[in-house]
Amino acid sequence: MSAEPQSTHKAPYNPGSQSALRLRNQQRIVETLLGSGPLTQAELSRHTGLSTATVSNIVKIMSDDGLISTSPTTSSGRRAVSVSLNSAGAVAVGIDVGRTHVRVIIASLDYRILAERSIPLRFGHRAIEGVESAARLLDELLKEIKLPHNAIVGAGVGIPGPIDSRTNTVLQGAILPEWVGINILELLESALKVPVYVDNDANLGALAQVTWGPHSSTSNLIFVKIGSGIGAGLILSGSSHYGHIGVTGEIGHSTISEQGLICRCGNRGCLETVASTATMIELLSRGTNEPITTEDIVQRAIHGDTATLRVIDDAGQAIGRVMGSIANLLNPEVVVVGGPLAELGEILLDPIRRGLIRHAVPLVGESTQLAMSSMGNRAEALGGAALVFQQQGIHASP
Amino acid sequence: MSAEPQSTHKAPYNPGSQSALRLRNQQRIVETLLGSGPLTQAELSRHTGLSTATVSNIVKIMSDDGLISTSPTTSSGRRAVSVSLNSAGAVAVGIDVGRTHVRVIIASLDYRILAERSIPLRFGHRAIEGVESAARLLDELLKEIKLPHNAIVGAGVGIPGPIDSRTNTVLQGAILPEWVGINILELLESALKVPVYVDNDANLGALAQVTWGPHSSTSNLIFVKIGSGIGAGLILSGSSHYGHIGVTGEIGHSTISEQGLICRCGNRGCLETVASTATMIELLSRGTNEPITTEDIVQRAIHGDTATLRVIDDAGQAIGRVMGSIANLLNPEVVVVGGPLAELGEILLDPIRRGLIRHAVPLVGESTQLAMSSMGNRAEALGGAALVFQQQGIHASP
Repeated sequence: MSAEPQSTHKAPYNPGSQSALRLRNQQRIVETLLGSGPLTQAELSRHTGLSTATVSNIVKIMSDDGLISTSPTTSSGRRAVSVSLNSAGAVAVGIDVGRTHVRVIIASLDYRILAERSIPLRFGHRAIEGVESAARLLDELLKEIKLPHNAIVGAGVGIPGPIDSRTNTVLQGAILPEWVGINILELLESALKVPVYVDNDANLGALAQVTWGPHSSTSNLIFVKIGSGIGAGLILSGSSHYGHIGVTGEIGHSTISEQGLICRCGNRGCLETVASTATMIELLSRGTNEPITTEDIVQRAIHGDTATLRVIDDAGQAIGRVMGSIANLLNPEVVVVGGPLAELGEILLDPIRRGLIRHAVPLVGESTQLAMSSMGNRAEALGGAALVFQQQGIHASP
Repeated sequence: MSAEPQSTHKAPYNPGSQSALRLRNQQRIVETLLGSGPLTQAELSRHTGLSTATVSNIVKIMSDDGLISTSPTTSSGRRAVSVSLNSAGAVAVGIDVGRTHVRVIIASLDYRILAERSIPLRFGHRAIEGVESAARLLDELLKEIKLPHNAIVGAGVGIPGPIDSRTNTVLQGAILPEWVGINILELLESALKVPVYVDNDANLGALAQVTWGPHSSTSNLIFVKIGSGIGAGLILSGSSHYGHIGVTGEIGHSTISEQGLICRCGNRGCLETVASTATMIELLSRGTNEPITTEDIVQRAIHGDTATLRVIDDAGQAIGRVMGSIANLLNPEVVVVGGPLAELGEILLDPIRRGLIRHAVPLVGESTQLAMSSMGNRAEALGGAALVFQQQGIHASP
């Protein structure tokens, strides 16, 4: 069994209720219209198996909500009503939760961003706070663009840490220690009241690259997110790779130095102990009272500060070394680097490239492209929206 | 594009010729019978698009060859001939080429081994010698089991080294340096006169595990072959992983020691420099005139020789360390160890397990099974036969 992200479609948003039932029926109508284009109400009834009364009722509500348009037509010589989906008639929500922020994106089926905003979260916030902030932000955005809640077909949510796909709980080792052990799917569905798909943030970053990014024709892509932790998302043979229990891409815990520093995972000498932004901050804050920030690192490097450049160079080479081993193993077409250091461009890419070429077998080193993500800190939320379309089998296209 | 192994179905066995045309038509008939069960000649003609004369002609030849059985029946009230495939009516050939041996296996669609033999090859043989030996051995085996050449639907051939899937050439870094740069697909099709699929030997080992082995329900499996080189074959989300240009599983060149020994790949401190059988032989032959063999290593370890056990322990831990990183990345359900040291069982598995658990994140370390291949030196040839069935879309079953 492959461990794909799953939506239970159960308890949290009370599926026995009238509203949940109507939402599911509406989803069937949306999916049918997506697959077939405009249909008459009678055809919709035949295609969905729903009664004509139910179809008529839902069409009325969706029409009032501006999700679909109806127009008179004839069918077999009789007068009928043709129903077509508006471009914002079925939207996907992408949510990215970080240690101190949450970002919400609302995307239409033609891949337009209808609304987007990021708000700060308290450092050390509990999971419920983060989830409720996301839900409030989503409601605000819906209000601003005058879209009803029932236009949402689902939400894809990125969590910065491994998720056990068997239990939908956030696992030890996450950047959000306060979230560990919580059934995140239940919590999210209960708050957002839509079907939810959860995934690791790096996986969503990878999915964003092949969905919205310049790499949409790539079947084998690795997205490396360098932040407080270091993780990778894998697109292999055209699909996200989830492995046996959903814990993949934990490259931050590749051993770089057998006798190195102790890592938060309990091992020692892991890549994160030499190349995460947390490590860079620690190294560059030595002897100062106030620790510097990730943004400080970016600014100092751009202005040529020698110590900062050296720390980035060492980190980059270590990441490149791990990427070399991974390229030897998986032979990706392209490796995309993302996270808060992406603004550094070649300052960070160059040492990664040197490390990669030094440690990969020659042909693999030469044939692996290396690129910086152009999506900034939006990659994970964009990937969340893409996950919804993918998991619901909706062939959206930009 | 994913780089899957391909058969060109072109030039080498002269596809314009009458015999090649008949072989292709026969293949269509075989595939149709595999998909539909017994059919009348008229139905075969309709299903394949071949003329009734062509079908009748091929059925006659195949029947004379014992590949199919015919029996009288009625169809729409008329007398007709029902055609059914014999169990050995379509066989796949698996070939494993090593530095000093070639093994040929003939397998029926119900996964019975109809014939199998391994013969020695001269160390340093040229590619053409190896291929011609394989072809002669195949002819011998066919003769012994009284099967005509046209029963073969294809041959899957494992090469101990990376193959560029764009050009079908064996690449630098192969265990067969004399084969490097040769278009191995052309050479093989020309000699064997059947459609050929080439793949890296470790990939075939992995395919054998999920096809013939005890791991047939596993979607995520890594097969590690420890020999003169160290390579891995990957089954990910249920399929063989080939990456961008077909060069995957090169785990022997993961850096273990930044300032370690120079490796044959040009880098230094690669896993192969501490854990291949070549390295073990070098370490244990120091100060003797005659280098020991891999078989000596196995025997000495089983009899408790301290130095041998230490060398195996160090090698095993290094392999385990690399497997830990790989498990963190891919989250496989099971890692299967194969190659000439497989007989060592726990003597080798135990240090690999210690290395894996030491270097993987806890949950991944705990949930990754580790097993020794039970297929001995047959894994690659068995995988070759499985590759034929897989590539031709034949759903054979044991």
